[in-house]
Order: sequence, then structure tokens, then C-alpha cells
Amino acid sequence: MIFRNFKMISNVIFGRGCFNQLDEILEPKRTAKDSWMVFVIDDVFQGKELEQRIPLHDKDMLLWVNVDDEPKTSYVDLLTEKVKAYSTTLPSGVIGIGGGSSMDLAKAVSLMLTNPGSSQEYQGWDLIKNPAVYHAAVPTLSGTGAEVSRTTVLTGPEKKLGMNSDYTVFDQVVLDPELIRDVPHDQQFYTGMDCYIHCVESLEGTYLNQFSKSYGEKAIELCREVFLDDTAEDKDDKLMMASFFGGMSIAYSQVGACHALSYGLSYILGTHHGIGCSIVFDYLEEFYPEGVKEFRQMAERHKIKLPRNLTKDLTDEQMETMITVALGLAPLWENCLGPDWQTIMTRDKARSLFKRM
Amino acid sequence: MIFRNFKMISNVIFGRGCFNQLDEILEPKRTAKDSWMVFVIDDVFQGKELEQRIPLHDKDMLLWVNVDDEPKTSYVDLLTEKVKAYSTTLPSGVIGIGGGSSMDLAKAVSLMLTNPGSSQEYQGWDLIKNPAVYHAAVPTLSGTGAEVSRTTVLTGPEKKLGMNSDYTVFDQVVLDPELIRDVPHDQQFYTGMDCYIHCVESLEGTYLNQFSKSYGEKAIELCREVFLDDTAEDKDDKLMMASFFGGMSIAYSQVGACHALSYGLSYILGTHHGIGCSIVFDYLEEFYPEGVKEFRQMAERHKIKLPRNLTKDLTDEQMETMITVALGLAPLWENCLGPDWQTIMTRDKARSLFKRM
Repeated sequence: MIFRNFKMISNVIFGRGCFNQLDEILEPKRTAKDSWMVFVIDDVFQGKELEQRIPLHDKDMLLWVNVDDEPKTSYVDLLTEKVKAYSTTLPSGVIGIGGGSSMDLAKAVSLMLTNPGSSQEYQGWDLIKNPAVYHAAVPTLSGTGAEVSRTTVLTGPEKKLGMNSDYTVFDQVVLDPELIRDVPHDQQFYTGMDCYIHCVESLEGTYLNQFSKSYGEKAIELCREVFLDDTAEDKDDKLMMASFFGGMSIAYSQVGACHALSYGLSYILGTHHGIGCSIVFDYLEEFYPEGVKEFRQMAERHKIKLPRNLTKDLTDEQMETMITVALGLAPLWENCLGPDWQTIMTRDKARSLFKRM
Repeated sequence: MIFRNFKMISNVIFGRGCFNQLDEILEPKRTAKDSWMVFVIDDVFQGKELEQRIPLHDKDMLLWVNVDDEPKTSYVDLLTEKVKAYSTTLPSGVIGIGGGSSMDLAKAVSLMLTNPGSSQEYQGWDLIKNPAVYHAAVPTLSGTGAEVSRTTVLTGPEKKLGMNSDYTVFDQVVLDPELIRDVPHDQQFYTGMDCYIHCVESLEGTYLNQFSKSYGEKAIELCREVFLDDTAEDKDDKLMMASFFGGMSIAYSQVGACHALSYGLSYILGTHHGIGCSIVFDYLEEFYPEGVKEFRQMAERHKIKLPRNLTKDLTDEQMETMITVALGLAPLWENCLGPDWQTIMTRDKARSLFKRM
């Protein structure tokens, strides 16, 4: 058995208001005379208070990104070109401020600044050849685990697949629970469920070991406090740690059926990851009976109305592509159902699940 | 409020048998033509199976260390001289194999190879000027958290105090639960209690935040499974993760009364850290009522006979020094008792506690 040598984030700062230390944290990276930084930030913050608080220096670039659609390889390539065109030198750092998509875009740009070609060439495992530019994350939304993961999920012309590599991992993460205080209720729920669901998938999976188990169990406990316990305090702090622990738990495990099917949904319908996982998970009680039961309690308590009948107008071709994308994620299915997964999750089975959604 | 930007270990590998991957993990560090490594290993392994399994290359140095006494600055200086005398070039890596003391010696040597003078000059916070030589840890004993901490605890001519710095943190940790399988029962208990106790101190402390709380709570849970639940499986894996989590929980918290008093005990009597903490903790129910109660359950279940009457033959001068050393650790007392700690933990109070031990 070969174990993965897990690359961790180099530095983590946690605390309410720690975003105020960002300038000081970046200072040692501004070494060269012409040193500059790119702040990759979700455009929902345009004109908001957070925009004013970005520690922008004279030569720095503020790069607004739109994540109405999930990140595409073409968008990464476009953003990378913009950054390259901004100066004759490479930036000293790429700072991603936002949710999972914005953080993933920041990771992707930091990688593509030092690796030639298009980002679609690097969708897969360990295809990145050169270290990225220094990159840091400031999550403003918690649950995806993008702040600790070794991937940056991208939709390319051929597949939805991340650029998985040790170089993808952030050098710095700034965890300031105050930044997630004002997230809209539904979005907070769906992104939190991304964390809850990937922990269930990891804990119920066949790949699990005690490292992932310890992180996953605590992440689920924290999700319970946040979404089921009205008396719990410091929920923003807890959700932020749940996301961090959930991301760490994936180190030695894998997500499962829900993530696989949701990738299919998202590839065809553009469904966002958190809501996509929530929609799919609601139909997976035969695989995750306890988890789905608790998920429904959480959804009910938070008065969440899950979208229904998403797939009814799909053409046969679209449906078949959706199935192909979902079943293409072999490690996820193997983690969920074991090595004989193909005898259980047939194309017919996947189709019948999708048709109910 | 200023938050610490916590430096994490760069890489972690976890899994039964993952020690077999050590050679492959070190390979990329053996870049230069004359590249060599030092393996710093506890001399209890002389002639044991583990000695044969060390991936020693031709030019490598095997440096046996004796940790019958806790690490001293003079010993660190001696070991550093030995390593420097071994070759005209610096080693490409220092690999510590053993318990907390051996890992701390490896950290200390890796720092002193690149920082001039004696290690006693660096006892304190952030006094280290230059990055260490690449250093990795292979714990063969779990509980101290030395594998993740930013300190290397040393007894110097004037004080027992660590070399705290970001450079102290290991670049690589190899967590192989098989390596702690054969630890003698009492030693496993005492070292495990180091973890349990520092988590209690951290969770009951005034410095706590949700980052440290999440790690500390899970570490305590794992300790309970290991030391109180006869039906729990994979206890070696759990204890190894408890130690890792316990170490991480210290990131934003601090130990407390027990560690402070045990430092005094250890300074005068040379008491080892784990057993010292256990001895002291048994007298601290007024500060940690729940924790001490549970600790006693664990001790009883594991048929541990704690040494008694350790301080009865001390001279007055020794007793006063012991008190001075213990009360010198202001942050630990402040964490336990708040800013007015000096009105509670007077010299008389400390003396009365020590006299009972």
C-alpha cells in the first residue's frame, strides 16, 4: 500500500478581525523593487465595505471575477492573460478573496502564470510541472474546503475536473469568521452542506483512515452545532473550522456518489456545486441512510426548498452525457461502493437517479 | 487583537507501514552530488528491527542520541559539533526518529547547523535568525505533540525553555501507527497523558479560540477512546492522531498550571515530561476538576502507580528555585488564571502544591 504524502498549507491565521493583518502577512513577499500583487476577488463585493479594506498597494492589481457560472478553463486562461498583460514581471502573489469558485480561480491563475499553455491541459492529477506564484486565500464563504484542498475544480471543454497537484495548495490561508457573517441564508446552507456531505461520503467510504476520520468526524460535529443546535454560539467560527476540517479530511479519503452525480448535473446544467450536492444527496438514502436523514432535518429546520424537476427537459443526448461524466469519476464510486462499483452503479441506475432529480 | 500566523508542517504522511516510504520521501532532498543526511535516533533502538529499516545511504550519518535525561542545550551543542565534524558540507536533512525528546533534538540540531553560537542563546521566542536545514520527524511515541510544535524544549544553564520559532517546525512528519505498537505500557500512558493534559489546559484556558477548540476537543475524544474504551479499535492510530491534534490545538492556545509546575519539577529533579505532568496534574483538581477526575479514571484503569513524595528531600534553596522556574512561565499562568494570576498563584501557594508532591 502506498500512502499519499499530504501537502499542507504553509500558514494559517484564524481569528475575528484577522483580515486586518493581511497587509502585514503579505509584506515579506513584496521583496523585489517592482514587486506587485493581484487580488482576485468575487465581484459581488464591488462597492461593498470589503473592497475598501483590501490592502492594495500602488502597483497592485485588483482583478474582479464573476462566479455566476462555475469556473471554466477558458475563463482561467482569460484571467491569466489579463494578469500577464498588466506588467512585464510576474506578480509576487495572487490573493483569492471569495468563496470556493473565487479561491479556485486564484489557485488556477497562480499556477497558470508559471505553467505554459491552457489550463485544460492540466485537468487531472499531478500534471502541473512548475511551482505556482505565491498564493493566499481569504474565504468569505465556508464549506467547500477549497481553502485547504490540492485541487482547483474547473469545467473544461471535455470534462469537469480539477488541476490536482501539490503546487495547487495555498501558501497562506486567512480565516476570519467575521467575513462570513453576512452570507445570504440559503447560500450559507448550501455551501455548509457541501462540507457536511463530503464528510459523510468520506466517513462512509472504503478509503478511510484515522487521519481523515478524525478530521471528518469533528467537521460533522461542527456542522451539527451550526445547523441543528439553536443554542450553539460562535456559529461563524464553527462553520469556518468545519470547512477547514472537512477539507483536511479529504487528504486520505475521497468524496463519493453524491459528488460524482453532482458533477454530471453541473456539467450539463451549470448547477452550482453546493446546491447541486444538496439536490443530489436528497436522493441517495440507499447509499447514505443516516446522512440523508440528518441532512433533511437540517434542510427542514432552515426552511430550504430544494429545486425539483431539473432534468425533465433534458434531451437523451444530454442525459447520456450527464451519466458519462458522473460515471467517469471512478475513484469516487470505488470509495462509495468498493471495487465492484460498476455492477451496482450501472448506466441504468444512474439514469433512474438523475430522472428523479 | 493580534493573531498568530501559524506555521504548519509542510508535509504529512499517515498510514500503517508508511515508514517504508521514507527513502522515497527524502529522495528529492538529496539533490547535490555530495548530498548526505543525518538520522537522529533514540538509542533504545540500537540493535532493534527499526535500526535495520532506516533508509541509510552510503554517505549518511547515523547519530544515536540518549534521552535518559531530557534534552540539554549542552547536549544539543555537542551533537551539532559532531554533525559539523562529520563532513565539510552541511547535511541535506536531519531526520529525527523517536519520542518527543529525540524529535526535539533533531529540530534543535537542524536549527543550530545554520545559526551561530550555542543553543542556549536561542531559548525564547523568535530568536532564531536563519532557516534550519530540512528536518523531518518519525514519532515512535505519541502524545507530546513535538511532531507539530514550533518549539524544541531544552534545559539550559539558566532555564528550561524552548527555541520557539517558525523555523523550528518540521518540514515533514511521517505518522506510522505501527511504530508505536510496542511502546511499554507505562510510558505509553504517561506520554498519552501529556496530550490529554495539555488539551485540558488549552480548553479550560482563557486564550482559547475555535481553531484550538476544534483540535483540542477531538484530541480529548480520541484520548478517551484510547484510555477509557476497551472496545475501541485502532488505538495506535487514534493515539497518533490525538497527539497530532493536541499539538495543533496549542497553535492558538497555551498550556497551563500543570505544565508550568511540571517544568519546575523537571528543572530540579530531572523528571521526564510525561510522568512529571501526570504527577502534578493529580494535585490540580481545584483548577481542573473535571479533567483531574477523568485523568484518575484513566490512571486507575491502566493500573498506574504515580510516584509520590518526590519533593520531601529538597533543600529550601531547591524548593525556591523550583517555584521560581514554575512561576516564571507567565503566559501559562495567565492562560489558566487570567491576568490577575499572581494574586492567586503566590509563591506560598506554589510551595504548598509542590510540598504535597
